[in-house]
Amino acid sequence: MRETEPKRVECVAAALSRSQIGITSGYDCSLLNNVQSDSSPPETIDKITSLPLGNGGRNPQLYRSFGSLATKVERNPSFSSLNSDDLSYFKGVLGEKNVVQDEDRLETANIDWMHKYKGFSKLLLLPRNTEEVSKILEYCNSRRLAVVPQGGNTGLVGGSVPVFDEVIINVGSMNKIIAFDKVSGILVCEAGCILENLISYLDNQGFVMPLDLGAKGSCQIGGNVSTNAGGLRFVRYGSLHGNVLGLEAVLANGDVLDMLGTLRKDNTGYDLKHLFIGSEGSLGIVTKVSILTPPKLSSVNIAFLACEDYLSCQKLLSEAKRKLGEILSAFEFLDSHAMDLVLNHLEGVRNPLSSAVHNFYLLIETTGSDESYDKEKLEAFLLHSMESGLISDGVLAQDINQASSFWRIREGVPEALMRAGPVYKYDLSLPVEKMYSLVEEMRARLGQSANVVGYGHLGDGNLHLNVSAPRYDDTILAQIEPYVYEWTSKHRGSISAEHGLGLMKANEIFYSKSHGTVQLMASIKKLLDPNGILNPYKVLPRSLLSYS
Amino acid sequence: MRETEPKRVECVAAALSRSQIGITSGYDCSLLNNVQSDSSPPETIDKITSLPLGNGGRNPQLYRSFGSLATKVERNPSFSSLNSDDLSYFKGVLGEKNVVQDEDRLETANIDWMHKYKGFSKLLLLPRNTEEVSKILEYCNSRRLAVVPQGGNTGLVGGSVPVFDEVIINVGSMNKIIAFDKVSGILVCEAGCILENLISYLDNQGFVMPLDLGAKGSCQIGGNVSTNAGGLRFVRYGSLHGNVLGLEAVLANGDVLDMLGTLRKDNTGYDLKHLFIGSEGSLGIVTKVSILTPPKLSSVNIAFLACEDYLSCQKLLSEAKRKLGEILSAFEFLDSHAMDLVLNHLEGVRNPLSSAVHNFYLLIETTGSDESYDKEKLEAFLLHSMESGLISDGVLAQDINQASSFWRIREGVPEALMRAGPVYKYDLSLPVEKMYSLVEEMRARLGQSANVVGYGHLGDGNLHLNVSAPRYDDTILAQIEPYVYEWTSKHRGSISAEHGLGLMKANEIFYSKSHGTVQLMASIKKLLDPNGILNPYKVLPRSLLSYS
Repeated sequence: MRETEPKRVECVAAALSRSQIGITSGYDCSLLNNVQSDSSPPETIDKITSLPLGNGGRNPQLYRSFGSLATKVERNPSFSSLNSDDLSYFKGVLGEKNVVQDEDRLETANIDWMHKYKGFSKLLLLPRNTEEVSKILEYCNSRRLAVVPQGGNTGLVGGSVPVFDEVIINVGSMNKIIAFDKVSGILVCEAGCILENLISYLDNQGFVMPLDLGAKGSCQIGGNVSTNAGGLRFVRYGSLHGNVLGLEAVLANGDVLDMLGTLRKDNTGYDLKHLFIGSEGSLGIVTKVSILTPPKLSSVNIAFLACEDYLSCQKLLSEAKRKLGEILSAFEFLDSHAMDLVLNHLEGVRNPLSSAVHNFYLLIETTGSDESYDKEKLEAFLLHSMESGLISDGVLAQDINQASSFWRIREGVPEALMRAGPVYKYDLSLPVEKMYSLVEEMRARLGQSANVVGYGHLGDGNLHLNVSAPRYDDTILAQIEPYVYEWTSKHRGSISAEHGLGLMKANEIFYSKSHGTVQLMASIKKLLDPNGILNPYKVLPRSLLSYS
Repeated sequence: MRETEPKRVECVAAALSRSQIGITSGYDCSLLNNVQSDSSPPETIDKITSLPLGNGGRNPQLYRSFGSLATKVERNPSFSSLNSDDLSYFKGVLGEKNVVQDEDRLETANIDWMHKYKGFSKLLLLPRNTEEVSKILEYCNSRRLAVVPQGGNTGLVGGSVPVFDEVIINVGSMNKIIAFDKVSGILVCEAGCILENLISYLDNQGFVMPLDLGAKGSCQIGGNVSTNAGGLRFVRYGSLHGNVLGLEAVLANGDVLDMLGTLRKDNTGYDLKHLFIGSEGSLGIVTKVSILTPPKLSSVNIAFLACEDYLSCQKLLSEAKRKLGEILSAFEFLDSHAMDLVLNHLEGVRNPLSSAVHNFYLLIETTGSDESYDKEKLEAFLLHSMESGLISDGVLAQDINQASSFWRIREGVPEALMRAGPVYKYDLSLPVEKMYSLVEEMRARLGQSANVVGYGHLGDGNLHLNVSAPRYDDTILAQIEPYVYEWTSKHRGSISAEHGLGLMKANEIFYSKSHGTVQLMASIKKLLDPNGILNPYKVLPRSLLSYS
């Protein structure tokens, strides 16, 4: 590691270095890989009143998690349970080794990485191509065997693990890059490709993924698309609804839907791929993806800054959008509570700013095509912001290691929270000017009983509100929910900005969506998956999904 | 008008001016306004074998247009015809003056602006708010009265005019801006707002619409969204699927679907607004729109260039994407045939380049936040391109008048084609490297019988292939179709990049979409509009839409 100190932003333009380095985005993501192999019992699974009895027995089969007050689920009695004929069929299609019944492997696949949700699946299937996915689903649909599509299992809302005995289908073996067109920047790949591998592949080709997130080392592009992942580059490249050009998806009945276009513009009929982007595997299993990737620009600059109040953070964002304009590629924030957690719980992380405690920290990244100009522009912006009092301290990364260490702080917050103990996580879209009031109100509400932490994608109006508590506890939960949802709804926010609804928030959808809209979602679910076998109990409220 | 000459690009860097002006995008669009009031008989309506007889009589009611070989339609006999009770109901809801039966006004509304499609509607309804739209549709649905939603009526595929006696619904009176948030840049407005008015409004607020197109003076934002309009800024800001944040739409049964979110990120359930973006009014009538608008950047530069071969155009595009990167905002092209038409048919337009004939002309626009830097960058790029032989001539606009005159050339091509006589228009997405081969093959195929013209949005792989002929003629049409569709399909292109399918290409959808996908579109159409009253005969193939 180079020992260069990051450059402090000072009100003396002449003192600033003009040196410039390009960086890539291969940041550390080891936690996600490690947690999945941790076999300690999940802390948050509670009161499984009866284990699945098989074949839709009469006794209600209930599930309860502390993930959300409303997460009480009864097994759908119309679903079948696995029998030996089913296993024989799957082995015939996939081969013995891709039909996994090993208990250790199932334990990992049954638990989400937060250890908040645990299912009881007895079977993990690993298809190697679309045809196999199709055969499996056609069979499961005819037998009314429920399934849960699972990618990297890095979701935060219980969407990617079984609730009861659903068959787990993981397309991780389908991880080939099918085509890449260097003229258009269009990448076509299988759904099981790990995001970080795609990022590396594209980097070698001189392009970038329009998507980057902390879980990149584990998450799969099919899962990213199915959950409409947002992440760290959203402020620059926007939503997957804008970047995904095509999809192949397998429906519940095994039909393969070829929507794998590779064109920027295509107005021939309804653009059905959007139904599958963000529907969390409840309408079909995504098997191939076509995505538009922008050219890699040579110059990346990163600043780590301190603000003393939230209003200054907001003002800085408005200024950055206008003054950095086309080169702004990330605008992230964390409060002092989040910073303390990172400094206390993650090894080797230190505050690049002076030891004084600041109330807010911002990470601003620019990406452009001209090294000297971009750095000059960012420096001028920062100097002006310091002179006008918006920022109280700040440093500019001088090399790739410093850049990575700044990103490590921001990306390390979820990991630090995990290490600190039980955590209630909320992922909210709110008007930027209202966003931090919720954190303050929640802090006042909970007093000494919990540590309320605010961080997230300020540039997109996306707050990650986290409540770190000594234990999972009904009393604390009752103080958080439904208050947090009501507050969000009152301010016309979204109760899920980027994490999805999964199991955790399926019943809370009405806080963000109108009844008519949710009714239509349920009708579309019934149209595409009449037996409801795809990722049951997730996304839509159980009250709307009654199957005969 | 200032008399400054545009600056020629020369291989002498020192000779280049550093002067810089900002321009807005208020280009001339008078044709669209004029054509609609032109009452000359449409040239292209042919062989109406029987006029609508009312109430689904037994005789087939046929429609034939020269827009496409396949455009032969029989009136859906399940639709009712208007009676006096219907008129009384509509007058009760909308008031006398918003129930239009005036023949002149109906004539305008029955004909598309290309004069290729003509319907026989006897009624134009002008609702003033969502509630009125809802009441009208609920009534029409219960009476099985077919309707056609019409915005600015600037479509090119017969999607916005009636085919038979459909009731025309125009929300042009719903043209209020509901809210604009200067922090986030999010605009909420009614669907009847004229695009150019929104552009002007935002310009005053320091923001820009992410959408701009030649028809801006007439087209309405609701129509833009319903047709997923592409246009001139697509290469920079991308698709409306990425920029539209929310919609309100009224379904066929009158239900109002409130999806009017104003958040950049919202992953709560299926993102149903995308169904309405680009479905050409066949699933619902869009009544309100929420759209993300980027800050207006201060520096706009425009170059008009000549290339001698298509390969050079392609190479220049690749270079521009990488070297101009984040400031590139338009990359348009026209061939010498298009240029000739513009010079011969449009008053006051002249070639800003030397009088030598060039094979291809390109318009490159950059938009950024720093005047001197942006211009320097574009000039350096152009000098390099000239030195390497990619461009043979070029000029840089020195003021807003020159900038407008360059855009006038590119935007004037459709108007020039119209003035030249009958024209067969095709709007295709193709891999950039294949795109111009189709123009050349079509030219060889048609020989002296027609003038084959190629122009469009090269930066997005979007070719506008136009065949200008002395008359509409079955022989010429048979040489163009289905050849043009087969060729496009063979090269994995789209037979409609941005114009939609409308009436012209509804039956051609299989050239670009798989059978399974089209089947699912038809199922969704039946789910949302079981009586098929919304914009019938359009978008989907008639074979799939049988209604009881």
